[in-house]
Amino acid sequence: MNRVGIADTTFARYDMAGSAIKEFKKWASVKIERYTVPGVKDLPVAAKKLLDERGCDIVMALGMPGPEAIDKQCAHEASLGLILAQLMTNKHVLEVFVHEDEAETDGELAELADMRTREHVLNAIKLLFEPKKLIKEAGMGEREGYKDAGPIRL
Amino acid sequence: MNRVGIADTTFARYDMAGSAIKEFKKWASVKIERYTVPGVKDLPVAAKKLLDERGCDIVMALGMPGPEAIDKQCAHEASLGLILAQLMTNKHVLEVFVHEDEAETDGELAELADMRTREHVLNAIKLLFEPKKLIKEAGMGEREGYKDAGPIRL
Amino acid sequence: MNRVGIADTTFARYDMAGSAIKEFKKWASVKIERYTVPGVKDLPVAAKKLLDERGCDIVMALGMPGPEAIDKQCAHEASLGLILAQLMTNKHVLEVFVHEDEAETDGELAELADMRTREHVLNAIKLLFEPKKLIKEAGMGEREGYKDAGPIRL
Amino acid sequence: MNRVGIADTTFARYDMAGSAIKEFKKWASVKIERYTVPGVKDLPVAAKKLLDERGCDIVMALGMPGPEAIDKQCAHEASLGLILAQLMTNKHVLEVFVHEDEAETDGELAELADMRTREHVLNAIKLLFEPKKLIKEAGMGEREGYKDAGPIRL
Amino acid sequence: MNRVGIADTTFARYDMAGSAIKEFKKWASVKIERYTVPGVKDLPVAAKKLLDERGCDIVMALGMPGPEAIDKQCAHEASLGLILAQLMTNKHVLEVFVHEDEAETDGELAELADMRTREHVLNAIKLLFEPKKLIKEAGMGEREGYKDAGPIRL
Repeated sequence: MNRVGIADTTFARYDMAGSAIKEFKKWASVKIERYTVPGVKDLPVAAKKLLDERGCDIVMALGMPGPEAIDKQCAHEASLGLILAQLMTNKHVLEVFVHEDEAETDGELAELADMRTREHVLNAIKLLFEPKKLIKEAGMGEREGYKDAGPIRL
Repeated sequence: MNRVGIADTTFARYDMAGSAIKEFKKWASVKIERYTVPGVKDLPVAAKKLLDERGCDIVMALGMPGPEAIDKQCAHEASLGLILAQLMTNKHVLEVFVHEDEAETDGELAELADMRTREHVLNAIKLLFEPKKLIKEAGMGEREGYKDAGPIRL
Repeated sequence: MNRVGIADTTFARYDMAGSAIKEFKKWASVKIERYTVPGVKDLPVAAKKLLDERGCDIVMALGMPGPEAIDKQCAHEASLGLILAQLMTNKHVLEVFVHEDEAETDGELAELADMRTREHVLNAIKLLFEPKKLIKEAGMGEREGYKDAGPIRL
Repeated sequence: MNRVGIADTTFARYDMAGSAIKEFKKWASVKIERYTVPGVKDLPVAAKKLLDERGCDIVMALGMPGPEAIDKQCAHEASLGLILAQLMTNKHVLEVFVHEDEAETDGELAELADMRTREHVLNAIKLLFEPKKLIKEAGMGEREGYKDAGPIRL
Repeated sequence: MNRVGIADTTFARYDMAGSAIKEFKKWASVKIERYTVPGVKDLPVAAKKLLDERGCDIVMALGMPGPEAIDKQCAHEASLGLILAQLMTNKHVLEVFVHEDEAETDGELAELADMRTREHVLNAIKLLFEPKKLIKEAGMGEREGYKDAGPIRL
């Protein structure tokens, strides 16, 4: 059975891992390894440990950066670390970040976090089991958590 | 037969890989390995996997970053990852990014994406088969997808 | 007995390591290895040496960047180095940075530095001994040194 | 005989490699390996391949970034890659970048590109053959392509 | 006898290495290996070569970035490279950068460069021989080249 790592944070204001786990259970039979860390800058090593030490085939890195400039910088640093973790392991780490200033109310923020996480779970499942489905969706202007932008043509 | 990796995204609004494959077929006899991922930040590991695990000699990384500041930052992070993937493998990964705000209409954007991709396919072919042709074009002010800036002289 | 590395700086205006050591003694029986360096940019290698050469299982990297643009840039560079040190060792390095401009008076700054350090000590202890407790706090909007933002729900 | 790698681009509007080769021939007996790539972001792997696969002792990485913000970012990414290539090989890669907006006319730009390249060739020769000469010039405020700023004293 | 590497540049307008060497001679018996390169972006590999190939136990990387935005970016890139060089070798590289716009006159700039370099030499000596002294200075708000900010307390 495939192993999926889910790394999330205590900083986030929404339980994104909860959404992820529910969505995985709907669609796939996988073993889930969960790893919670304080903030997004702790996610890269958590993801790498899930891949190296807990046998995961793929990891979802869930975070909710705050609205300030320093939060944006933390998210940037975390993103670079997540890319590096992937290059060191040759495995995918799907970054699912929801910025607190992407929504106007707490309710909308929770909804966005839930939706984006769930849509990226579908991406993870396709990467693991059905990569050809992704090829069919290539260039389709997909947007996780938002309405798709859609494809354009010549 | 040489193997060319084409990594692209479901986020992009134009099927850049389609353009790339058509252009390759026109000019070269290569085996194409295609790998579609959700967004540009997933491209570095996709490129590395194409090089390490699927035997590609070169990769084209095709992406279409959105117009917002966060999109620009994602593209920056992806670019750094693509450079690192190359340094870890000693193989070329040609980044072909078309920013959504580079064009005013969807039609122009599609045209730009098609053109830039096709012109970079020619670069890939030269890197693989005719590196001396690139030396002849050195310093000529070439611009993929736009009119060339042209050379200047003393 | 677990070994905890504490890396701190002479640049900081508050003895954050003092707070950390006191807090560790309250809650855990660990051997503490302390390593003081001049500034935050010296922390990444200090952390890595604590992990590689002095047998630490986890490191806390304590720093207090100044208020100028150049200080912010130093902190950014240090943060990237700390993430890299973790990816190279597969161990956690908890970054505890307090920016001088986060408080209006010296007293408030000292209090913030003390509180944030102590709250991150609790994170370190959980990462070492009780990772399941962190899972329970996932998505709770925790803020080290500040009032928690709290969770939001659908 | 020492081997010098020269990596340049088709994006540049001036044949900087031509200037470099002429200047090398004036002053040193070296074997030159030339490698032309599309743009500055392709230079890091080109430099690394010259060092790793074509036996170069040093590389000059010649590029001419455009005037837009995106060009500046590409140059930044390329610079980071060039530094990394050096750290992975323990060999020097002299970056010679001329930004298109450093000059007001095409003629001045060509002149600057020619001069900066030639002055860096002298640096490369000193790094290879006469490192002590560089020590004598330390702290002298040298500027490649511009008038030297000159030394200051207590 | 310990070996100290001193990497400096011809770009700098003050002979910072001269100050460093004088200060080392006053306080410690070390063998000094000097390595001059053109600019700050050449310092990371110079530092790494001093550590890997010339047996240095520690390196001081001395530079004087210019006042323009591009100079700031070069310094940023160099700093990241210096941090990486340390992580690859598990040895300290003390960055001593003096920005040209930190002083109003050439005389003040020279004085600042001299002072900051000398104070960092004392840091290097403590890192090498008396790390416990640094622990005593932790959190004291030390500033190399400027008046110390001093410690704050609860």
